[in-house]
Amino acid sequence: MPLSQAACESCVDLLIIGAGPSGLMLAAWASQFNISTLIVDKSPDRVQTGHADGLHSRTLEILDSFGLGAQIFKNCYHVNEICSWNPDPAKPSTIQRTQMVDAQPRRLSRYSQISLSQGAIEHVLLGYLKDNARVQVKRGCVPECLSVEDDDQTDYPTRTAIRRSVDDDAASFNGRENDNAETVRAKYVVGCDGAHSWVRRQVDIPMEGENHNTHFGVMDVVPLTNFPDIRKSCVIHSSTGSVMTVPRENRLVRLYVQMGETATDEKFDRSSVTAEKILAKAREAFHPYTLDFRICDWQSVYTVGQRLAPSFSFRDRVFLCGDAVHTHTPMMGQGMNVSMQDAYNLGWKLGSVLTGIASPEILHTYHRERRSVAKRLIELDREMADFYCRGPSPNSQEYRRYREKFSEFLSGVSITYGPNALVAAGDSKSVDVAVLTGAVCGQPELARSIQLGRRLPSYKVVCQAEANVVQLASMLPSDGKWRLLVFAGDFAMKSQYDAVQDLGGRLQGFQNAHTVPGGDQGLVIEVLLLHAGTREDVDLLNLHAVYHPWDDRLGWDYWKVFSDDVSSFEPAISAYESYGVDAKTGCVVLLRPDSHVSYIGPIGRAAADMTRFLESVFVGEGAR
Amino acid sequence: MPLSQAACESCVDLLIIGAGPSGLMLAAWASQFNISTLIVDKSPDRVQTGHADGLHSRTLEILDSFGLGAQIFKNCYHVNEICSWNPDPAKPSTIQRTQMVDAQPRRLSRYSQISLSQGAIEHVLLGYLKDNARVQVKRGCVPECLSVEDDDQTDYPTRTAIRRSVDDDAASFNGRENDNAETVRAKYVVGCDGAHSWVRRQVDIPMEGENHNTHFGVMDVVPLTNFPDIRKSCVIHSSTGSVMTVPRENRLVRLYVQMGETATDEKFDRSSVTAEKILAKAREAFHPYTLDFRICDWQSVYTVGQRLAPSFSFRDRVFLCGDAVHTHTPMMGQGMNVSMQDAYNLGWKLGSVLTGIASPEILHTYHRERRSVAKRLIELDREMADFYCRGPSPNSQEYRRYREKFSEFLSGVSITYGPNALVAAGDSKSVDVAVLTGAVCGQPELARSIQLGRRLPSYKVVCQAEANVVQLASMLPSDGKWRLLVFAGDFAMKSQYDAVQDLGGRLQGFQNAHTVPGGDQGLVIEVLLLHAGTREDVDLLNLHAVYHPWDDRLGWDYWKVFSDDVSSFEPAISAYESYGVDAKTGCVVLLRPDSHVSYIGPIGRAAADMTRFLESVFVGEGAR
Repeated sequence: MPLSQAACESCVDLLIIGAGPSGLMLAAWASQFNISTLIVDKSPDRVQTGHADGLHSRTLEILDSFGLGAQIFKNCYHVNEICSWNPDPAKPSTIQRTQMVDAQPRRLSRYSQISLSQGAIEHVLLGYLKDNARVQVKRGCVPECLSVEDDDQTDYPTRTAIRRSVDDDAASFNGRENDNAETVRAKYVVGCDGAHSWVRRQVDIPMEGENHNTHFGVMDVVPLTNFPDIRKSCVIHSSTGSVMTVPRENRLVRLYVQMGETATDEKFDRSSVTAEKILAKAREAFHPYTLDFRICDWQSVYTVGQRLAPSFSFRDRVFLCGDAVHTHTPMMGQGMNVSMQDAYNLGWKLGSVLTGIASPEILHTYHRERRSVAKRLIELDREMADFYCRGPSPNSQEYRRYREKFSEFLSGVSITYGPNALVAAGDSKSVDVAVLTGAVCGQPELARSIQLGRRLPSYKVVCQAEANVVQLASMLPSDGKWRLLVFAGDFAMKSQYDAVQDLGGRLQGFQNAHTVPGGDQGLVIEVLLLHAGTREDVDLLNLHAVYHPWDDRLGWDYWKVFSDDVSSFEPAISAYESYGVDAKTGCVVLLRPDSHVSYIGPIGRAAADMTRFLESVFVGEGAR
Repeated sequence: MPLSQAACESCVDLLIIGAGPSGLMLAAWASQFNISTLIVDKSPDRVQTGHADGLHSRTLEILDSFGLGAQIFKNCYHVNEICSWNPDPAKPSTIQRTQMVDAQPRRLSRYSQISLSQGAIEHVLLGYLKDNARVQVKRGCVPECLSVEDDDQTDYPTRTAIRRSVDDDAASFNGRENDNAETVRAKYVVGCDGAHSWVRRQVDIPMEGENHNTHFGVMDVVPLTNFPDIRKSCVIHSSTGSVMTVPRENRLVRLYVQMGETATDEKFDRSSVTAEKILAKAREAFHPYTLDFRICDWQSVYTVGQRLAPSFSFRDRVFLCGDAVHTHTPMMGQGMNVSMQDAYNLGWKLGSVLTGIASPEILHTYHRERRSVAKRLIELDREMADFYCRGPSPNSQEYRRYREKFSEFLSGVSITYGPNALVAAGDSKSVDVAVLTGAVCGQPELARSIQLGRRLPSYKVVCQAEANVVQLASMLPSDGKWRLLVFAGDFAMKSQYDAVQDLGGRLQGFQNAHTVPGGDQGLVIEVLLLHAGTREDVDLLNLHAVYHPWDDRLGWDYWKVFSDDVSSFEPAISAYESYGVDAKTGCVVLLRPDSHVSYIGPIGRAAADMTRFLESVFVGEGAR
């Protein structure tokens, strides 16, 4: 911590309350920036068993952008197919499989759904934070009071009292014995503290929505059963009730059993939902198949209502992520995903502002971008819950229809942020928007399968210098950089080559004006080039140096130029074709640090457009 | 260590001398068995920079069979293309690229070549040993005398004195201060102690071969150059000399520069080969391209001659792996590979004998199987070195021809062990062999693309229960188990289904007679089934229980039955087709614990053949 103002007082750039998946995701982002971050959590250790367990495509892409994909995939369950079971019309007391469908269309992402316990995911993220050693994690701590002062009075306008809740090693806390409270002054505070968010209550933001709660019995067991689809995710509608199953790592299967509904103000006796009771209900639904277990890893009751906070931030100094601002049923396995995605949206913005790269104005976009996602999620959840609770459907196609309708949204890859300070407008017709974004509109039609405001999909490309086939996404790590992806087209056309070289010169000028001390050559925007010609015909070193920057110790950078020349690799799928970009004339795509598309335009106009568009985003060198 | 016979004396099942790649590979195998293993090395720590750096397909497959693939691939360089540079006929003082070829045919393995420093590989293997916590690693220790007693006098017939060579933390050695020697009695000793093997000299095995040495200047630098192919592996033949380049992780490039040749008994002043001298020679060869560096990670001189030991073992109590019994040039990047593969061949045999599963007779096969590989390697190396030293070739196709000729062998996947106690004969004509293998011959023609004695290639299959596409190899981890792979054909034919069920009953009987205490249900042979029908038509639980064994706590095992039904996955390549197996009638393939094919035969005869074949391999339950 950079400053110590007084006894028991410390200053940090960023204070995160809650070290669950969204808090840890935010901390992962924070560790990419040269800022001081403290994350506190009331529990003495990470979650060990149970809790959330579904990870969808976009969340996996995000985790992989921090280099964590391999660890996550090592021990997870891949959700490939989903089965529906319904009463056998000939013998309604028994069930039969009515459908087996792909969990989601394969084209959506290079990653499909998986399931893995929340504890395992927290473990991976905590390991990442430990390796990076930039974020301080304090456990067994509860926040006690939060106040926000005026920005212009102080650099650290928030003040939070933190008290040690676990006494056994109080001596190590803050280096003093018997001193179990401190005040943390932070530039920004983020509440990732769950459905009963303490932070949200401090800033007086209510939850709005349903006036009733639904109660689910949940358990993770190693099933002893003759049910044939026990290693598939199943929705079982029997005549006696409904059960959802989600297979997991280590032979576990998660069972969701609906146990009842109450009004919000009505008391529900959670202790009445015992493992025996959940098993008994599940057994009825499984009939004629047997169900038993000797190993139960975890068991709980989920009490949920569909609710949404009207605001995700307070004076752009206090922000809220995840369950703190939206709650819904576990039916679609979305909770952990949307929560981590909230944090992923917020993290780079805070980091960029705190390091003086970006204007604080961009923080407005957090509420705007993420609340609409949460709103849509809750709408879908309501629809899905209604469907699920209705019981057996006479139409066996109905479940499939729901899955198809929802799969793009559920996978997270179709989340699209509308035009704002960080996403250029698609056309100039909407004047308001044009004003907002500095009147930069680009030409999104130049990349037919890339959508403004949406994350860039990843396809395979070939490294020009090493002939290695890589996912383009592997060149877009979450390191805080913006990226300009130059689809250079075909260099065989002299005019095209000249245009790309000319763009190189202009980009060099832009980069020189926007660097930060330290880091990878101080780049704020990294330039990547993907050409559509054959590799043999291109000499990397003849290209403008902005495409392969020089370093006096390390020499040329050989890892920024790629070819679409996948002809000799299996399967040979052209990235240009997949992105819908013309292989002769190309285009330019600007990506935010979270890989969402900011701008699409022609090579000739890209440098000018970008300079204008980013004027309102980046703090000029002089301003810092 | 199980026994302590006297002060300063300890007993272990296996003593490994040398903790380089082959010693660590052997230790990795040892950690899979319930045996006590000690590995000692004279150096205080693992290699940090330089040394070997090439890993070929088979070595990567092997590392992945211990679950280490992802770690290895995280930071390596992929050798995809290889370039030849030769003098420009128009201006012979300069060089030009004459060829760019694929490093190896893609069909050979799911993994191509990579380069990564030996230290990184040792780090991964040491981490694996630490996680498994079964092997004791002692560093800073030199062996001082080795004797071998008669087997029938003692359970621990070898006796090795080990002295601590590094004094600074002598106190921790063996728990006593100022006591820096101990005697280790071991059932088996393996020398993985390099070209100057102390173990080999103890058992009086000479090295035979060339009477001259070749000297290479070797360095790992981050090059500052305008040479366009610096991130490709290159063979540069200039008019002034030859250089080989191998790109590596972390922007490094390995340079091999030939510095001269001397007779074996002639003195060569290694200290005369300075970094400046190597750079100067390399610069001449690079002309007209520039070459410089500011970072040199490592620099050394390789002095090598092509030599081979006449025997790889001594009384089947002392074994030798790697450089200890074969040396050659670094030209083909084989050293670390063949060394680790020696250890991989030996490890499971020792483990199986030490745990009482297999007869000590199988240890004979180590020398027989591995010396022929080393012999072939040295022949090829001689040919390659001659080609390389001859300088520029008038025929630009020549290098390509060499690569193609050698690539199968170099990749390691075509290594084929002839008929012996562990590999059934292909036909009954060779009577000698038939006697040796209990006259079991099988019908190898039932799997046209699987070769007896060769490692089973891996293709994608679909898990019946989870619909997950997996490499078959991921189901064949290096855990000491033999595996019977039942290509069950198409269950739509009743007779086929019945035959597979009947085989199940017989296999159950075999398994019941061959179990070991502990481990995965005590299986010595695991049964895996791959059927050629569609998944929807097969109910796993209807198959004989040997294909999905029951456990009272864990329930059914859902991970042993696979389908060839890849139709909905991209690219849809049938494993049956790839293996050349008839999709109706199938066959049975028996795999050794190292995934080399032992036997191929028809479903109807497999159980009887296998029982007979394995009679001489396995120690019967009564015998233990």
